[in-house]
Amino acid sequence: MPRPITARSLGMDIGTLPPGPLNAISDIDGVTVGHVTRETGDARTGVTVILPHPGNVFRDKVLAASHVINGFGKSVGLMQIDELGQIETPIALTNTLSVGTCATALIKHAIRANPDIGRRTSTVNPVVCECNDGYLNDIQGFHVAESDVEEAIRTAQADFTEGDVGAGKGMSAFELKGGIGAASRRIALDGETYHLGALVLSNFGRRQQLRIAGRPVGDGRAGSAASESGSVIIVLATDVPLEHRQLRRVARRGGVGLCRVGSYLGHGSGDVVVAFTTANRINHDESRDLLSLGCLNEMRIDRLFQATAESVEEAVINSMLAAETVSGFEGHRRESLARLMDRANSLL
Amino acid sequence: MPRPITARSLGMDIGTLPPGPLNAISDIDGVTVGHVTRETGDARTGVTVILPHPGNVFRDKVLAASHVINGFGKSVGLMQIDELGQIETPIALTNTLSVGTCATALIKHAIRANPDIGRRTSTVNPVVCECNDGYLNDIQGFHVAESDVEEAIRTAQADFTEGDVGAGKGMSAFELKGGIGAASRRIALDGETYHLGALVLSNFGRRQQLRIAGRPVGDGRAGSAASESGSVIIVLATDVPLEHRQLRRVARRGGVGLCRVGSYLGHGSGDVVVAFTTANRINHDESRDLLSLGCLNEMRIDRLFQATAESVEEAVINSMLAAETVSGFEGHRRESLARLMDRANSLL
Amino acid sequence: MPRPITARSLGMDIGTLPPGPLNAISDIDGVTVGHVTRETGDARTGVTVILPHPGNVFRDKVLAASHVINGFGKSVGLMQIDELGQIETPIALTNTLSVGTCATALIKHAIRANPDIGRRTSTVNPVVCECNDGYLNDIQGFHVAESDVEEAIRTAQADFTEGDVGAGKGMSAFELKGGIGAASRRIALDGETYHLGALVLSNFGRRQQLRIAGRPVGDGRAGSAASESGSVIIVLATDVPLEHRQLRRVARRGGVGLCRVGSYLGHGSGDVVVAFTTANRINHDESRDLLSLGCLNEMRIDRLFQATAESVEEAVINSMLAAETVSGFEGHRRESLARLMDRANSLL
Amino acid sequence: MPRPITARSLGMDIGTLPPGPLNAISDIDGVTVGHVTRETGDARTGVTVILPHPGNVFRDKVLAASHVINGFGKSVGLMQIDELGQIETPIALTNTLSVGTCATALIKHAIRANPDIGRRTSTVNPVVCECNDGYLNDIQGFHVAESDVEEAIRTAQADFTEGDVGAGKGMSAFELKGGIGAASRRIALDGETYHLGALVLSNFGRRQQLRIAGRPVGDGRAGSAASESGSVIIVLATDVPLEHRQLRRVARRGGVGLCRVGSYLGHGSGDVVVAFTTANRINHDESRDLLSLGCLNEMRIDRLFQATAESVEEAVINSMLAAETVSGFEGHRRESLARLMDRANSLL
Repeated sequence: MPRPITARSLGMDIGTLPPGPLNAISDIDGVTVGHVTRETGDARTGVTVILPHPGNVFRDKVLAASHVINGFGKSVGLMQIDELGQIETPIALTNTLSVGTCATALIKHAIRANPDIGRRTSTVNPVVCECNDGYLNDIQGFHVAESDVEEAIRTAQADFTEGDVGAGKGMSAFELKGGIGAASRRIALDGETYHLGALVLSNFGRRQQLRIAGRPVGDGRAGSAASESGSVIIVLATDVPLEHRQLRRVARRGGVGLCRVGSYLGHGSGDVVVAFTTANRINHDESRDLLSLGCLNEMRIDRLFQATAESVEEAVINSMLAAETVSGFEGHRRESLARLMDRANSLL
Repeated sequence: MPRPITARSLGMDIGTLPPGPLNAISDIDGVTVGHVTRETGDARTGVTVILPHPGNVFRDKVLAASHVINGFGKSVGLMQIDELGQIETPIALTNTLSVGTCATALIKHAIRANPDIGRRTSTVNPVVCECNDGYLNDIQGFHVAESDVEEAIRTAQADFTEGDVGAGKGMSAFELKGGIGAASRRIALDGETYHLGALVLSNFGRRQQLRIAGRPVGDGRAGSAASESGSVIIVLATDVPLEHRQLRRVARRGGVGLCRVGSYLGHGSGDVVVAFTTANRINHDESRDLLSLGCLNEMRIDRLFQATAESVEEAVINSMLAAETVSGFEGHRRESLARLMDRANSLL
Repeated sequence: MPRPITARSLGMDIGTLPPGPLNAISDIDGVTVGHVTRETGDARTGVTVILPHPGNVFRDKVLAASHVINGFGKSVGLMQIDELGQIETPIALTNTLSVGTCATALIKHAIRANPDIGRRTSTVNPVVCECNDGYLNDIQGFHVAESDVEEAIRTAQADFTEGDVGAGKGMSAFELKGGIGAASRRIALDGETYHLGALVLSNFGRRQQLRIAGRPVGDGRAGSAASESGSVIIVLATDVPLEHRQLRRVARRGGVGLCRVGSYLGHGSGDVVVAFTTANRINHDESRDLLSLGCLNEMRIDRLFQATAESVEEAVINSMLAAETVSGFEGHRRESLARLMDRANSLL
Repeated sequence: MPRPITARSLGMDIGTLPPGPLNAISDIDGVTVGHVTRETGDARTGVTVILPHPGNVFRDKVLAASHVINGFGKSVGLMQIDELGQIETPIALTNTLSVGTCATALIKHAIRANPDIGRRTSTVNPVVCECNDGYLNDIQGFHVAESDVEEAIRTAQADFTEGDVGAGKGMSAFELKGGIGAASRRIALDGETYHLGALVLSNFGRRQQLRIAGRPVGDGRAGSAASESGSVIIVLATDVPLEHRQLRRVARRGGVGLCRVGSYLGHGSGDVVVAFTTANRINHDESRDLLSLGCLNEMRIDRLFQATAESVEEAVINSMLAAETVSGFEGHRRESLARLMDRANSLL
């Protein structure tokens, strides 16, 4: 599915590293993304899942790390990621109040493929991150069902839609329409090509803060007195082999991209980064005592830091450009950045 | 309800500080505990809730902190506790796979009392901690319902049952029956009496490690080759006014009590501490900009550290002594420590 | 001493909040800054001290917090700041290899004023932060003496110099001359005026990354292949009463200002934030058990986050504008940003 | 040098795993320990160094992690260990006020072997940990010299002395004489033999808390009203290949051994763990971009947790048994546990 509008299609160059072929998190081989959108009645919400690879993630785990930029949020699963350095389910994104439903759905999905869970082997750690879409969505309606998670997993693909889809349906960014966005960067190591990609669920920022490719869009002074609120979830994937500690360092650079689009990491925004590498797998049924792990010469890690900063910055802008204007709960409305730019060509 | 058997009723003195009147977490004024137990068919599970006070916890939050001793666990809500230093729902304990259900139930409970949640005010952060009761319980059966959480909250009381009840129904400790246990300690400050109390959900330890009041019960050498697994949840409450940083320091001493009963904080045990003080409340609708907080002269904090170590140690032993023998899923069986002691008086 | 050149004197407005009267960390009442510069022979180094108040800091401690943005650095004293939430010596800044000397000097300074240290009362926790000035300075020469710290403390004042002075003498920023810079912001709370101020020791960044007031100065593409290296130390002071947890949240926003001037928080840069509030004092000889602490309504903390982001951004630019061109070790040379702007008026 | 008295030589079995041949940290091949003791006049202090291997540690770094059990301490170098996961100097232990001197000495030692430090390559991160020996030692005398560190490094050996030597000269444990102690455990993995060893600098605990091999020695009730103070430093070494995250998990079990000897991790005790593995080296001049790292099947990590708990417990007891009675500053005196046991054979 071709992207209707992206920062790059508009000639906005963000950063200096080259993007991957899809300029998306799915440039990491095997990574796919699925959405289910709920938009009947007052519902403007949904679920988005990121699959680290097409296999059984519980038995073939990926090495992972997380970073909490600002912990005013309700994500689940991060504690075990930090302790064990691994992810063993798809990552689900949804609205704040549907986290419990999605966690249960991921558990049931894992049990279907692995009937020994909780009986002959350990239980499973679902990873669910969230933003509050209560401005556009009737969030008290609990409109996301367990079956939506299952469907999102089943339909995940490398060539996925961005903007007001899945978990992004009801999200707001910079008082405009936010949602799902992606970008990626290419990295050369030992003569081979690798990638780092980002997927964001954008739901943060005040209008007057917004910067696109470094240029202020709001006037930086006036604007609503509203606090920065909402949240943003950043999922990073790479095929560069990294040790957990290195991946955590990469995850900690997720906030750089947020600052570049104008955020000061406000109180009300629960900003969370989840990062994984597909290059180091953990076999649930491993029988050897001693193993080997690929890792990066630490002196090269700036390449990943820069790729992270640029991918996140571009993914946030892409999330806004790809989104259509959405009206929803109680008549609230968030305008599309692309439509706004069409109307006011002088804006940028 | 009188406790059938406790460490203290058997003349085992654990530590040197005096206990509170109930020797339980409910010695902290206003704290109550409720259970719903599910034990039909293969179900040996349930939910236990701790209410920090009888009021609307979302509008009248308590200052809180958490500590992860070992993060191989699936508790939810800790990230926001650490960022904002507050708890705004009852704390629910349950089995690992029922965490999502209990989180949703706590959200709905909060919405019923506060219809502005997610609409005119922020969303709500449910706190749910868990252990894996899959040995005795058909954990894949998802036997805990949202209504069970509601009922546990409704029936919570200061004089609560310990042992194989609520979330404790299916738990195992030291290859014997574990579950819910409590203890408390009295602390004098500036001439006044304060308390610190602990409630544990015990589900950890191998038989040969067990120490009661410092004395080895297993022979410390033989025993099963099984890894330490399971988990333990520690909830600490106090009426001593503490700053968040101080409360976090107290929470970090929760592991001392576990070491005293013989644990070496094994890989497979997700050990989590949640601590709160009822002395510092946060008004959700606060209008003043600047506030005041009670705190402790740091030179006195050892009193709370010692009270924590002793309360947790005694609460674990009480959780085992109060529990009856339970048989369950696939014919698995965990014997009661009290019954074992009856049979072999020479044991201790 | 009037600042020769600052961002503000050049008409560059950074952020939207108003600065304090001095636009410096010394807008917080009682805070002073002292420098000793060493520049004979190949030495281009020194020491800078920040005094939280004019009294005996060991006996009258200030509530504090720290945050490590990137831990590739050698600062000392942070562990105890995080555990106890307090600072009990002046904060010294110096070059990387002189940290030990400055720590010893701070200890001796504390002992002179408090002869009971280590004998009748606890020892003392010196706080020393550092950047690597080895490009301009003969860093292996260990040119900072214990007496320099003493002198810097003795001569500290509210109206202090910025640029290539004290610890800033040998530092480089964005391949230009860096060093000491400051800025502050005014904050209204409950009808009263408060301040938050920043002092930075800037020694980071590559030329092509630099952004001044949001505008790229380098071309963002070409430039040296050198990794971002060096470091930056950020000291934040405020007279807003904050709990330790709140102060830590403020400290975590120090990195926002770095991102705004173009950093992506590179591997080689040890970026550290130390923050304190003068509004909450800890009496070393406190005899009461229970105390009271001022704190902020958390819903107002965005004001401090924004003040932090803006103060740090402006302080970095001020550190560069105030610095003269410096030549040093092995003929290395860092040009003054102000001189560069004089020469190429079209630059900005 | 044969150990005069150890727990094992007295027939006290601590734990269940077998010790290594030396029952010391030097059972890890290449690890050596050196002491310089200062005991003229009122000095009762010194320095102890642990060398991870006999080569150039700056160029051939070892993978490392740290854990702060209680941060009321002044150790230096931990921040960079946590960020980069490596140690690049010997580890020095000393008294609290001599940390600066030892840091400078380690820097100079590294520069002598690596003249490019701070000039053509990065600076160096000295690791120095400390306890407060001010009860027996004239700590304000700054009796440790830079040359003492150099001599300790030069004379380090696998067969080192324990007790009241080096940094241990002036330390107190459980109101008796403490100091340097060691122990190790053997671990089988994939059919090969590995070791984990501990070295402690013990300076913590109140008499009535002490437990030897699980048995209370004090009566647990009476005793001084003094707060637990002092500190303990735990250095762990292993030849098991571990990822940084795994090594950090091992380090976090250091506190278990402290609890087993009776500590409740008191406020005044700065308890710090530094852990390294000799099996994963980091070449300072590495030219490849991608590398490989040995690591452990996480399901086997309990073997290391148990080895850590037992080694630390035994090392603390050994530190006390090996120490002679010492009198020092202001006539203060700490009795030897071994002498005490001689006198009162009924004690245990």
